[in-house]
Amino acid sequence: MKFWSEFYIPTLKESPADAEIASHQLLVRAGLVRKLSGGLYTYMPIGLRVMQKITQICREEIDRGGSVELWMPHVHPAENWEKGPRWNAAREIMFRADHAGSGKKAGAEPEFVLGPTHEEVITPLVKAEVSSYRDLPKSFYQIATKFRNEIRPRYGLMRAREFVMMDAYSFDADDEGAIKAYHKMKAAYEAFFKRVGVLAIAVEADTGVMGGSFSHEFMVPAEVGDDDVIYCEESGYAANREKATSGLVATDFVVAEPIGEIEKFATPGVTTIKGLAREPHNIPADEQFKTLVYIGDDKPFLVLLRGCDDLEEAKLGTLGFTLVRPATPDEITPLMGAKPGSLGAVKDTLKAADQLAGVFADEAIKLVGNGTTGANEDGFHLRNVNVTRDLAITGWGDFRTVKAGEPCPTCGAPLKSRRGIEVGHIFKLGTKYSECFAATYVDDQKQSHPMVMGCYGIGISRTMQAVIEQSHDKDGIIWPWAVAPFQVLIVLLDPAMEEAATLAKTLGVAAELAGADILIDDRDERPGVKFKDADLIGVPLRITIGGRGLKNGVVEVKWRHESEVVQIPVAEAASRIAALVEQPASA
Amino acid sequence: MKFWSEFYIPTLKESPADAEIASHQLLVRAGLVRKLSGGLYTYMPIGLRVMQKITQICREEIDRGGSVELWMPHVHPAENWEKGPRWNAAREIMFRADHAGSGKKAGAEPEFVLGPTHEEVITPLVKAEVSSYRDLPKSFYQIATKFRNEIRPRYGLMRAREFVMMDAYSFDADDEGAIKAYHKMKAAYEAFFKRVGVLAIAVEADTGVMGGSFSHEFMVPAEVGDDDVIYCEESGYAANREKATSGLVATDFVVAEPIGEIEKFATPGVTTIKGLAREPHNIPADEQFKTLVYIGDDKPFLVLLRGCDDLEEAKLGTLGFTLVRPATPDEITPLMGAKPGSLGAVKDTLKAADQLAGVFADEAIKLVGNGTTGANEDGFHLRNVNVTRDLAITGWGDFRTVKAGEPCPTCGAPLKSRRGIEVGHIFKLGTKYSECFAATYVDDQKQSHPMVMGCYGIGISRTMQAVIEQSHDKDGIIWPWAVAPFQVLIVLLDPAMEEAATLAKTLGVAAELAGADILIDDRDERPGVKFKDADLIGVPLRITIGGRGLKNGVVEVKWRHESEVVQIPVAEAASRIAALVEQPASA
Repeated sequence: MKFWSEFYIPTLKESPADAEIASHQLLVRAGLVRKLSGGLYTYMPIGLRVMQKITQICREEIDRGGSVELWMPHVHPAENWEKGPRWNAAREIMFRADHAGSGKKAGAEPEFVLGPTHEEVITPLVKAEVSSYRDLPKSFYQIATKFRNEIRPRYGLMRAREFVMMDAYSFDADDEGAIKAYHKMKAAYEAFFKRVGVLAIAVEADTGVMGGSFSHEFMVPAEVGDDDVIYCEESGYAANREKATSGLVATDFVVAEPIGEIEKFATPGVTTIKGLAREPHNIPADEQFKTLVYIGDDKPFLVLLRGCDDLEEAKLGTLGFTLVRPATPDEITPLMGAKPGSLGAVKDTLKAADQLAGVFADEAIKLVGNGTTGANEDGFHLRNVNVTRDLAITGWGDFRTVKAGEPCPTCGAPLKSRRGIEVGHIFKLGTKYSECFAATYVDDQKQSHPMVMGCYGIGISRTMQAVIEQSHDKDGIIWPWAVAPFQVLIVLLDPAMEEAATLAKTLGVAAELAGADILIDDRDERPGVKFKDADLIGVPLRITIGGRGLKNGVVEVKWRHESEVVQIPVAEAASRIAALVEQPASA
Repeated sequence: MKFWSEFYIPTLKESPADAEIASHQLLVRAGLVRKLSGGLYTYMPIGLRVMQKITQICREEIDRGGSVELWMPHVHPAENWEKGPRWNAAREIMFRADHAGSGKKAGAEPEFVLGPTHEEVITPLVKAEVSSYRDLPKSFYQIATKFRNEIRPRYGLMRAREFVMMDAYSFDADDEGAIKAYHKMKAAYEAFFKRVGVLAIAVEADTGVMGGSFSHEFMVPAEVGDDDVIYCEESGYAANREKATSGLVATDFVVAEPIGEIEKFATPGVTTIKGLAREPHNIPADEQFKTLVYIGDDKPFLVLLRGCDDLEEAKLGTLGFTLVRPATPDEITPLMGAKPGSLGAVKDTLKAADQLAGVFADEAIKLVGNGTTGANEDGFHLRNVNVTRDLAITGWGDFRTVKAGEPCPTCGAPLKSRRGIEVGHIFKLGTKYSECFAATYVDDQKQSHPMVMGCYGIGISRTMQAVIEQSHDKDGIIWPWAVAPFQVLIVLLDPAMEEAATLAKTLGVAAELAGADILIDDRDERPGVKFKDADLIGVPLRITIGGRGLKNGVVEVKWRHESEVVQIPVAEAASRIAALVEQPASA
């Protein structure tokens, strides 16, 4: 039981200027956090209480999932990362740490980095500890601060430089075991989000720089989310847009009838799909080929799409390059012989085909017959281009962005799209890290194999903010019971009145024994201020003592998520409140 | 209830080569930590459990002491420190953090630092939040990782680059309030160390680079400690040697009879106190003056001591310089006109008196009459030097190291000395930080004043190791009940035997209900291995099930700190064990 006057909850009337979204505004206004610097926040007392509750629920569920808790250093020797498989991709997002007196030259490799995640630490640790199949499977997790050098931190705790994450790592003897570990962890995540009281949906996701064979993200649907989720209400299909597929693409090629002969034609000043779709050319976007130039690990490659489709850059990850970026106009022109806007991949027009790492075609171009593409000559295009006959394709894949309305890949019903906040991610990593760090085990035939790994993350601080984003109204936060900083707020209208103060303590003790955390608002403030603050900080159950009610022998009880105020006779208050508390507390 | 086979406790027979002290060896051998790199340790599952228990006890006691928990960032903007009062002194011990792409030049000021403590963050925070006397007093604390760029990390968690600390900060309207806050915190510390089960003695301490008016350290007596504690068994006086005083010094000057005239004499090749004490000079060390040259904030100053005394460098902190260091021979010779070994502070021989920031004399030289000192001329000394008549003293102080055997400053009994591990520190800071950050409040007369601060630290990870250092034997750790990773270990001699396994679970549940954490050793290992591991990891209460005992209808019970094994009939085991658990659990 805490007293507001001795505790510290600095509520604010105004939102800070840099808070663009409701949850960020409420984090600050309800006194949960204070900003130290961009992306660096102090968790104020009630913010920390929520974090501790989310942490404890996470610990219990991940424990139940069979993982064992440990705690790794925040500062990592850079050499662990240099040895690992993703130093080049990850170094830009990491803080580097050095001594004041290290005498390092600018641009030199740092001695230490601050960990954004811990594969590079736990894999060598497990390698040193575990060597026999008898010691497997093993799964370890920690709940700890992570660091990410966000260039543009924003949205409060959503994209911060410091954040708290649960990260888990599983080590199995074989693929079957790893898949079992993956599903055990997925179930633990589902239990966690349910207990926290937030709706988080598992969606198929891209594995990105982490690598690995497959993964799911846990998404909290919210308009302010950074990610698009493509989903089907019929089949239950759900995937991050970066990973989503659709039923649009036929496996067979569309064959134009009749197939025309290639013709070059002048298109002066036309350098866009839209331009070619207008007068005088009138070529619909879905009858055009889009030719993009990318650089993969220093070698250029082409990506072909329908003119009406957009590239989903994350999908280029399947090509196996470590670093991928769009080529610059200065790189494109000498390579292709033309500026962007007149590019194409028709066999004879590709002057530097031998310099290319490949020409990768999106499956959807199979739907184009007698299409139009650039002639690799400024101001000229080619018509009657047909895929199998004319294009110098070396590989196929799914590279396009799936849009709402396309058919579901599972059932054909129209797909929908909504934005979401990523609060968790699970990866089946395979042997990418264990091979790199030689984390092997010996089987019962004395044969050595790399361990098969999985890795798993839950954003603890992000989950706190996602809860607020999903559960608030115009007056403030509406905390789910399990993670509320306090579950019961007893408002004393006149704290100096001894009878009221004694009753508050009696009811507080009764509610505490029933399993709730109690805050008594004993401040010397007007009732209006107290009720506004109560709504703002979002304590689920409010009990008001004092005023006319107390004279009439009643206390007032109100749930934050309901508008009704219920009057309870003082004599019954302790038992009635205990009963109210026991119900959600045991949920 | 955990099962050893599903948990992870990697015990080792051998100590790591770099572990010099017992507690460091046991941390590793009992599987509590693993080294990632110098001064960076992973807390393995049972190590983390102990840390979490110590953390929770600390939280409860500091809460009880009236401080409110929050959680500040690990990464601090360097500008906070540049604005603060100790940037120059603290920067060398801090990690600097930058982006990979920050383009900072080597030697440039870093953008961020990793916090070794948080005065520079909390003072501006409280300044922004609190402005009226009505909001005071306030006290905040956190339990969080701290970073220190140790050049030579050693002794495991004792001197590490990352460590966990409880740090608290109190803000009061006046000195009286600050002293009250200080004593409240001191009481909370005493309660904490008592509950943890470690003997920690509060001793007077130097305020060092932290600054402030007075402070106490909490010391765990241990031979491997870094600090010397000077104490008196009669009066209870106790102080860090850096701060200790003795009753040796009379307030009156000893006057030589007769007072001689100063005489210069040749001392070729004699440049030490010892040399002058030998043939042919035979001048006892306590009749010599020792003259030391130091640099304080770029200006030289002299310190005068008796030849038999040592300088306690920390005591120079009272002189008010920000940075103090010994002068180099290259700085000394031109200043004094002679090399070290022939220096003195006799008025006429001081050639560059105007360049000195002062000549500071230790009180004990009052005991010297007709003394000998250097002539500021290589190879010459002066005899018949008398303090008040001859020496160019500008200030007095206590600068000498107190030794065991000297009289207690309180009661005169002989002082004793022992080594200790510092596990906590409390400072009355005064207004050093609040003035620097303009953390002021307005009183009821609308007058503005700087808040009066205190700051407080407990080394959580260090306390864990100090417990081990204080409580172990040749076989392993002997955990105090309250912080043991598990309190009861049930050893199954034959885990495959169903009757034994069922009994283990029954007894485990009984002990758990009585308030203990239970570990069941269900590994497929020989009994000898299990008993050795049980002693090594130091679980307080061991219950053995199986073998001949079980055939005879008994289980064996043994306390880790006792040698006796008690046999209990199976039928009584659950209730007897519950009774054993309830006693220490409620202590």
